[in-house]
Amino acid sequence: MPDDELEPLPSLSVEDVRAAAARIDGRVHRTPVLRIEALDARAGVELWLKAENLQRIGAFKARGAMHAVGHLTRGERDRGIITFSSGNHAQAVALAARSYGCRATIVMPTDAPAIKVAGVSALGGEVIFAGTTSDERKAVALELAERTGGAVVQPFDHPHIVAGAGTATLELLDEVAVRTGGGTLDALLVPVGGGGLIAGACLAAAATGTKVYGAEPHGCDAMARSLEAGRRVAVPPGPTLADGLKPTMVGRLNFAIAQAHLAGSFRVSDEQLGPALVSLLVHGKVLVEPSGAAGLAVALAGLVPGQDQRQRSDQEPPRRIGVILSGGNVDPALVASLLTMHGGTA
Amino acid sequence: MPDDELEPLPSLSVEDVRAAAARIDGRVHRTPVLRIEALDARAGVELWLKAENLQRIGAFKARGAMHAVGHLTRGERDRGIITFSSGNHAQAVALAARSYGCRATIVMPTDAPAIKVAGVSALGGEVIFAGTTSDERKAVALELAERTGGAVVQPFDHPHIVAGAGTATLELLDEVAVRTGGGTLDALLVPVGGGGLIAGACLAAAATGTKVYGAEPHGCDAMARSLEAGRRVAVPPGPTLADGLKPTMVGRLNFAIAQAHLAGSFRVSDEQLGPALVSLLVHGKVLVEPSGAAGLAVALAGLVPGQDQRQRSDQEPPRRIGVILSGGNVDPALVASLLTMHGGTA
Repeated sequence: MPDDELEPLPSLSVEDVRAAAARIDGRVHRTPVLRIEALDARAGVELWLKAENLQRIGAFKARGAMHAVGHLTRGERDRGIITFSSGNHAQAVALAARSYGCRATIVMPTDAPAIKVAGVSALGGEVIFAGTTSDERKAVALELAERTGGAVVQPFDHPHIVAGAGTATLELLDEVAVRTGGGTLDALLVPVGGGGLIAGACLAAAATGTKVYGAEPHGCDAMARSLEAGRRVAVPPGPTLADGLKPTMVGRLNFAIAQAHLAGSFRVSDEQLGPALVSLLVHGKVLVEPSGAAGLAVALAGLVPGQDQRQRSDQEPPRRIGVILSGGNVDPALVASLLTMHGGTA
Repeated sequence: MPDDELEPLPSLSVEDVRAAAARIDGRVHRTPVLRIEALDARAGVELWLKAENLQRIGAFKARGAMHAVGHLTRGERDRGIITFSSGNHAQAVALAARSYGCRATIVMPTDAPAIKVAGVSALGGEVIFAGTTSDERKAVALELAERTGGAVVQPFDHPHIVAGAGTATLELLDEVAVRTGGGTLDALLVPVGGGGLIAGACLAAAATGTKVYGAEPHGCDAMARSLEAGRRVAVPPGPTLADGLKPTMVGRLNFAIAQAHLAGSFRVSDEQLGPALVSLLVHGKVLVEPSGAAGLAVALAGLVPGQDQRQRSDQEPPRRIGVILSGGNVDPALVASLLTMHGGTA
C-alpha cells in the first residue's frame, strides 16, 4: 500500500462540479450533444453523445486543467505551472496557462509523437523530455517544482481535476433535461483511464438516478479489476488502440468515488473500438480517438443491462443512454486505415 | 430563354426565413457553431463554422424539405410526396415525409450510389430509378405527380426551399450575436450548387451588413459566371470532388435573390477542397463532404477581401467570417484516400 493511502480523502459532491462549471465558463467550450438516428437504431436505445472531441484542444482534459489553474493564486501562477503527460493533458495545461497568461512547462516522454509535442508548443508550452515512463516524468516534474516553486497540475487524481471533468456530465444532463422536458439518462458510459472523467461523472450524476458505467479496453481494465477486488489493483497495460486509457492504476481519489457510485465497468476490444470510431465518423460526421470511442463501443455491443429491446414491452419508451466522447486527437494515418478496413460495413 | 423566365418571381424577405424557422423547429436539429483555433490561425480571421454536416440526414437539405412538406395540407400529404434527386435532397424528402407521417417517392438516377439509395430506403422512402440526367428524373417525377395527384418537392428553386435553407444562416447569425455580445459576421461563405442555400443566406443576412459570398468549384462555376454575365448562364459541370455542386444552372429565383444581394462568388480547386476537408477533420474533428468544404477552402486560401492581416492595423480586431459546412455525406474510401494524401500536412 503506498504511503498516501493513509491520508484522508477530500469529500466532493455535485456542488463542487457546479462551482467548477462557473469557474471555467467562457474559457472552455460548452460542447454539443449529438443525436444520431443510425446509431440509435443499432443500439436499440436513444444515444445522447456528449462531444468532448469538439472541446478546446480536442479533449475533455481542457476542463480539469482550466479549473485547476483557475484555483491557483496570481502569485502561484507567476512562478509558472508544471505538469507531466504524454497525452491530451499536456495540451490542456498549456492552454490553461495561456488562458491565464502564465508560463507552463510540460515534462513529456522522449518518445512522444511529434504531433503532440507540436501541439503543446503551438499553445506556448515549454517542453522538457524525460524518460519513457510516467514515473520518470513525474519525478522530473516534482524536482522542477521543488527548484522553481512552480505549481504542479496533476493529470487525473486531484479534486480540481475531477470536479472540472465532471462539468461535461453536468452539461449533458442539463441538455437532456431541457430537450426532453425534464427527463434524464437511464445510463451513462464513460471511458476510463486514470478515472478522473468518470469520478467527475459520478459526482455530477449522483442525484439523477442515472447508472454510471466505465468503458475500458480488455487488458487495460484497471477499474473493472479494482472494483472486483474491492481495492485498487495495478494492471500493466496490454496492447490497445485506445492509447489514452493506459494508466497502470486508477487514481486513489477517483477509485474511492467510483467505488461509492459506479454501477460497473465494461471491457471492449480493438475489434469493437475500430468499428465504433468508423460508424460515428460515417453516420455522425465526428471524429473521435479510439479512447474516445470506448463508451460508444459498449453501447453498440449492447452490453448495458436493459439495452436489449426484446426484454422491453412495446409500451416502454426507448431508454436513454448517455455517452461521453472524450477526445478526438488521433493520427490521421490510423483513421485512414480504420476507414479502409471498416468503412464498407459502417 | 425558358418559358418560365416570364413568370413573376415571389418576393421573399428575412420574415419568410423566420417563419420557416418557427415551422421546422423541433423537426430538424439546431446545429452547433464551431470555433477552431488552428483554422483561425491559418485564415488570419475568426472563423464561425455552422456545422450543417451534423444536421439530420447529414446535410442542410433537411431544412428546406421539412419546410416545404410542412406547407402542404393534410390532403396533399395523403396523396404522397414526390421528388427527384441524386443526392442529399432525396434523403431530406424521405425524412420530411416520415416526420409528417406520409409516403415519399423519390426518382433517382439508375447509376445512383448504393449507399444513397440505402439511405432513402432506411428512411422509408420509395425509390424509382429513371435515366442518368436531372431532366430525365424530373420528367418521370412530373408524370408521376400528374397521375397520382402527389405534390412535387423541388430540390432547390422554390420559395419554401430557399426560406428553409436560410434558417441555417439565421441560427448562425443569432449565435454570433449571443456569443459576441451583439456582434455580427463581416462575411459569410456559402457553397453554391443550385443556389438555394445561398439565396436563403442572402435573405437571412440582408439586414446585418454581412457580405455574402458563394464558393464554387472551378468548372462548376455557374453562379460566378451568371453574376458576371448579368443573367443565368448554363455551365456543363466539369470534373470536381464536390459532387453536390454540379447543377448545370442556378435556379431562377435563387439567381434573382443572389443578383440583388451577393458580394461575389469564389472558385476553388480540388487541390484546395481536399486539404480543407482534411484540415477540418484533423483540427476540428468533424467530417464534411467535399462540397461542404467549399466555403472553408475559400477562407483557408485567403480569398476574402480584408482577410489579409497585413492590410489591417494592429488595433483592428480580427474579422469574423462565417462558413456554412453544408453537408457530410461522403464515401469513406474517398476520406481514407484524402487523409493518406493530406493527413501529414494538415
